[in-house]
Amino acid sequence: MVMVLALPAVAFAQDEPTIADLSLAVDTVWVLIAAVLVIFMQAGFAMLEVGFSRMKNVGSVVAKILVNLAIAALLFWAVGFAFAFGDGNALIGTQGFFLNATPDNVNDVFAGLAWTQVPLSAKYLFQVAFCGVSLAIVWGTMLERTKFAVYVIFAVVFAGLIYPMVGHWIWGGGWLGSLEMQDFAGSTVVHLSGAMAALAGTLILGPRIGKYDDEGNPQTIPGHNMPLAVLGVLILWVGWFGFNPGSTMAAIPDIADIALTTNLAAAAGVIGAMVMSYVRRGNVDVGMGGNGAIAALVAITAGCAFVAPWASIVIGFIAGIIMYATLEFVDKIGVDDPLGAIAAHGMGGIWGTLSLGLFTTPDLAVIGQPGLLYGGGFTQLGVQIVGVIAAGGFVFITSLAVFAILKATIGLRVKPEQELNGLDISEHGVYGYAGQIIATDDRQNGNGQYAAGPQEKVRAEDVS
Amino acid sequence: MVMVLALPAVAFAQDEPTIADLSLAVDTVWVLIAAVLVIFMQAGFAMLEVGFSRMKNVGSVVAKILVNLAIAALLFWAVGFAFAFGDGNALIGTQGFFLNATPDNVNDVFAGLAWTQVPLSAKYLFQVAFCGVSLAIVWGTMLERTKFAVYVIFAVVFAGLIYPMVGHWIWGGGWLGSLEMQDFAGSTVVHLSGAMAALAGTLILGPRIGKYDDEGNPQTIPGHNMPLAVLGVLILWVGWFGFNPGSTMAAIPDIADIALTTNLAAAAGVIGAMVMSYVRRGNVDVGMGGNGAIAALVAITAGCAFVAPWASIVIGFIAGIIMYATLEFVDKIGVDDPLGAIAAHGMGGIWGTLSLGLFTTPDLAVIGQPGLLYGGGFTQLGVQIVGVIAAGGFVFITSLAVFAILKATIGLRVKPEQELNGLDISEHGVYGYAGQIIATDDRQNGNGQYAAGPQEKVRAEDVS
Amino acid sequence: MVMVLALPAVAFAQDEPTIADLSLAVDTVWVLIAAVLVIFMQAGFAMLEVGFSRMKNVGSVVAKILVNLAIAALLFWAVGFAFAFGDGNALIGTQGFFLNATPDNVNDVFAGLAWTQVPLSAKYLFQVAFCGVSLAIVWGTMLERTKFAVYVIFAVVFAGLIYPMVGHWIWGGGWLGSLEMQDFAGSTVVHLSGAMAALAGTLILGPRIGKYDDEGNPQTIPGHNMPLAVLGVLILWVGWFGFNPGSTMAAIPDIADIALTTNLAAAAGVIGAMVMSYVRRGNVDVGMGGNGAIAALVAITAGCAFVAPWASIVIGFIAGIIMYATLEFVDKIGVDDPLGAIAAHGMGGIWGTLSLGLFTTPDLAVIGQPGLLYGGGFTQLGVQIVGVIAAGGFVFITSLAVFAILKATIGLRVKPEQELNGLDISEHGVYGYAGQIIATDDRQNGNGQYAAGPQEKVRAEDVS
Repeated sequence: MVMVLALPAVAFAQDEPTIADLSLAVDTVWVLIAAVLVIFMQAGFAMLEVGFSRMKNVGSVVAKILVNLAIAALLFWAVGFAFAFGDGNALIGTQGFFLNATPDNVNDVFAGLAWTQVPLSAKYLFQVAFCGVSLAIVWGTMLERTKFAVYVIFAVVFAGLIYPMVGHWIWGGGWLGSLEMQDFAGSTVVHLSGAMAALAGTLILGPRIGKYDDEGNPQTIPGHNMPLAVLGVLILWVGWFGFNPGSTMAAIPDIADIALTTNLAAAAGVIGAMVMSYVRRGNVDVGMGGNGAIAALVAITAGCAFVAPWASIVIGFIAGIIMYATLEFVDKIGVDDPLGAIAAHGMGGIWGTLSLGLFTTPDLAVIGQPGLLYGGGFTQLGVQIVGVIAAGGFVFITSLAVFAILKATIGLRVKPEQELNGLDISEHGVYGYAGQIIATDDRQNGNGQYAAGPQEKVRAEDVS
Repeated sequence: MVMVLALPAVAFAQDEPTIADLSLAVDTVWVLIAAVLVIFMQAGFAMLEVGFSRMKNVGSVVAKILVNLAIAALLFWAVGFAFAFGDGNALIGTQGFFLNATPDNVNDVFAGLAWTQVPLSAKYLFQVAFCGVSLAIVWGTMLERTKFAVYVIFAVVFAGLIYPMVGHWIWGGGWLGSLEMQDFAGSTVVHLSGAMAALAGTLILGPRIGKYDDEGNPQTIPGHNMPLAVLGVLILWVGWFGFNPGSTMAAIPDIADIALTTNLAAAAGVIGAMVMSYVRRGNVDVGMGGNGAIAALVAITAGCAFVAPWASIVIGFIAGIIMYATLEFVDKIGVDDPLGAIAAHGMGGIWGTLSLGLFTTPDLAVIGQPGLLYGGGFTQLGVQIVGVIAAGGFVFITSLAVFAILKATIGLRVKPEQELNGLDISEHGVYGYAGQIIATDDRQNGNGQYAAGPQEKVRAEDVS
Repeated sequence: MVMVLALPAVAFAQDEPTIADLSLAVDTVWVLIAAVLVIFMQAGFAMLEVGFSRMKNVGSVVAKILVNLAIAALLFWAVGFAFAFGDGNALIGTQGFFLNATPDNVNDVFAGLAWTQVPLSAKYLFQVAFCGVSLAIVWGTMLERTKFAVYVIFAVVFAGLIYPMVGHWIWGGGWLGSLEMQDFAGSTVVHLSGAMAALAGTLILGPRIGKYDDEGNPQTIPGHNMPLAVLGVLILWVGWFGFNPGSTMAAIPDIADIALTTNLAAAAGVIGAMVMSYVRRGNVDVGMGGNGAIAALVAITAGCAFVAPWASIVIGFIAGIIMYATLEFVDKIGVDDPLGAIAAHGMGGIWGTLSLGLFTTPDLAVIGQPGLLYGGGFTQLGVQIVGVIAAGGFVFITSLAVFAILKATIGLRVKPEQELNGLDISEHGVYGYAGQIIATDDRQNGNGQYAAGPQEKVRAEDVS
């Protein structure tokens, strides 16, 4: 077991610490706080998903967040962290299950993270928080119609195997890292992975009832609570100051530079998406502003430590525009993505991973090559493209397989009347908004939201 | 007064700091951040209590949070901190009122906290945050029917005297500490104390109108907002990374180990409670998942620094199960506990305090004994049992006395029509949900919630 | 460009750091975390404004928060930070646009912040967070009737020029700093500035429809969601632990002392406002408690590093009372301030700035004079008065001019029917509370809130 430092229970009377002690202390404090910020992002995703859902499904949303966070914590501890960062081969780690290491061999067992001196427990906490973020992204496309059991089972596979393998390839000693693919804080590892699983899920699941009319035209199903959605965005924005600067896993002054590029990109992403909204629709859509921030934060994640501030603005602004265009496109071709996960995390992740092949400055190109714009040539960009295709394709195909198996066995989707009445009743026995939703019941065709067709006229059961 | 370091207003131009300066700096940063995380838990309790209340009472909930936080801050500064950590006798501290100490005598005046080098102001902030948490727990059983004046008066007594005395016994140089009782971050001091006062309160107060039918069968009064309740749980979860690791009151690498056991326990608690929900009711109850996390976090609080990661999972999982069973039992015997405070903080606190007598590893048993499972014998477990009985019994009896006096004088409970119309109107003059609640008014028997009997047909007053 | 430290992408293998390295590391960690806490305050303002708005306008509130945060980040990076902290003359900085500096000249270019050793990016992040807070305060008076374009344009001017100039005068090397005016964390720079722009805005804009009856008597328009409003207050309270202690911009033990005065003041402010509420109205108003905390936090901001704990309680308590009285007065004379920004941030800011002229202790009066109560004479108090008049007057006049120009050109205010239907529909195309608001529609005169007169009977458009 890991916990080997003796911890005096009442008296922490310390001898004068050495410089090495202090260096370890400040690094540990920083990484732990960064991990806490990233774990707090679960509250951000919860509020974002709640805000973009209809009232009848909000209890299911938050139940899923809690259970997924729990599953990720346990599975990543038992096997995921070992698969990702344990010593092994080019595809997967094969050592360190249950964080099993001693102080003497910990840097051999977890060779993929030997470069940071913080305790193994801190390495795990920071990385499991990332795994939880990736898992949360998956469900952005699958809201309001998925069986709760599917959330549970896929979480086990994703947090226990799929995500860790991608992590190993790029960060843990695997083949993409050997090719010198760069992905500083996980535009591909975390965000594209989540989005590709999300894409696989919604393709197999199909759109929500009422999302497309009889001619196949997309209908707007507005989220019921923009204040909570934006609260979610702001929590994510704040959490990203753990996500990106924390990926140094050391308390070095560069963390402030990384926070700077992160913040500028997010700001530019809001503007990019809002401009698109104004141009395309003549108003300023709230949800688009939020998704613009997220897409930009996703995009700057790969290159936040490698690009200049002006470039972070360009990356973020373009991310906001790409997000908007993708959202429109996806909607039109019949892919129902309530939260915009494919647009924000998927296309944002791809754009971000490629962008560092364009914008990495010579100064900051420590392992990879300077970007194309600085005369670094196409090599790095090519590697980035390979990485996006390999990692994205791997997650998409494996997720597609898992969802197909689930569909063929337990089924992915609740019954139509359950979907119409809301998942809260069928899956959790009570509305998440007990009290409110009954009042609006018969006026709103039994589901706390606009009518989307005659089949929605099913009335909610008494919830006592 | 404490504030003795000269603080240059414009120019903080520093000489090269010494190692001692840096050690103090990093410890202070860590403890301050941990205190902030614990203070943030007030937002968690606010959202949790709001979510589990009915719409007509939510303004009262948050008003109480604000006033209680204020009272705790002021009372604990004036007297509570001195009673808890001031030098004194086995029962209570007798020095250091108003944080009165000089740099020369601070470690004599506050001998109970002399083991940490951080400034007195940091010690106070971290400890007052704990006091505020304990006080917040008290009201979990007393929602939706208590007079606002009771919140104010009991807060003065609890934050000023009851809580500090328990703190002194275990952490401040008192008799339970002398017996080598172990309670690292306060399963007993903070959580069991709050829960025993909560139990005393609800016993004197009686259940909410409509909670039991004429035959005494418990009725479900569902909380009105699960998204906010789970937001509260997630804020508490995040805040616990200040609560447990911060209790080192020093920036040592062990903080990451403590965060690890804390996180694993919480995850296991969610699973434990969800499994119970599925077994007992056939669905996955949202509120139970949240309470499972909280019960597990409470339980790991005592032993987080002393047990192995696998043991933290066992402790958390069992806490989730115990919480569920307790909640059912308490409900059945006629004790109305809207938030589950007795189950989560009370039984979670007892189980946690005892669990370290089972699971403490020999490596981490610095002052106490290794746990029973490691061959440490029954001594430590026996001491833990004594501590639970003594501390829990003391809080229960003193709280019972205070609530009884309040009942005999100003009265504990609002009038039935006030309870039916909601505390927001009678105690605060306006609905916390002005606008929403009027709309649903006549359909929902005047209180924004299910009818629970004919006596609830009272109509809400105009709120202008 | 700033980002000059080479950042190894995969391996951060560090040599043994020096004491200077560690000192820089811990300072950077502290300032970055403090900046994150202050940026998180945007979520606090969002929830506060949402809570005090009516349901029909909440989408507009949060859209404005996102766009303003984005504008502040970009404008303050491009020009604002240079105007504020760049070397220049007594009125404005003239160097350092786009954070342009090298490691060699950074302390010359940004002479106003040369006293802290943290990286330029950290200085910027902390200061831009302050700018964002000041900007958020502006809109507290202008909710529920302002055109979205006004938010955008004024944000550019305020974040790009007005706020930076005040910052330069007091903190950046300008004339008020030369007079030794003291404003530790910005009672005047941040809060009074925001409040004076808010006052200018509401004077030109006029009150909301229905706020005053035909005889000019003020009508209560209660905010729709006190739980979210108090969540906002608690987030602000927590954020203030970055705001005030972070203003040291160094990890020194004094940060805990500053956090102590900050917390005590906030607590006393809640009590002060609640006592006023009880005396004046016979009940305990939720919103007042929250505004009492904010007013007190604003007031202690100027002197948090200079006054004793007992004085912070006096300052906070008086701030709560002043806030209440101001709110009543402002309401009566026909100034519509939905959030209480003039009372909390304006009068709180003035009182706080002056209070340090009374309460600064001799020990802590490093640059300025001890307070009047310690025999320091009237000099410091006089300088503080000059500062309040100069800074407040400057912001008021320039803001008045900008708003007047906007009124004469694009117009400040939405059309009456847009105001009645809610800004969400007219400015953003969909309700922020889609689903809820339709249900309560015809019962509540089409706007999810109390009727305020026959003209409110306009029905909301279909929002599909």
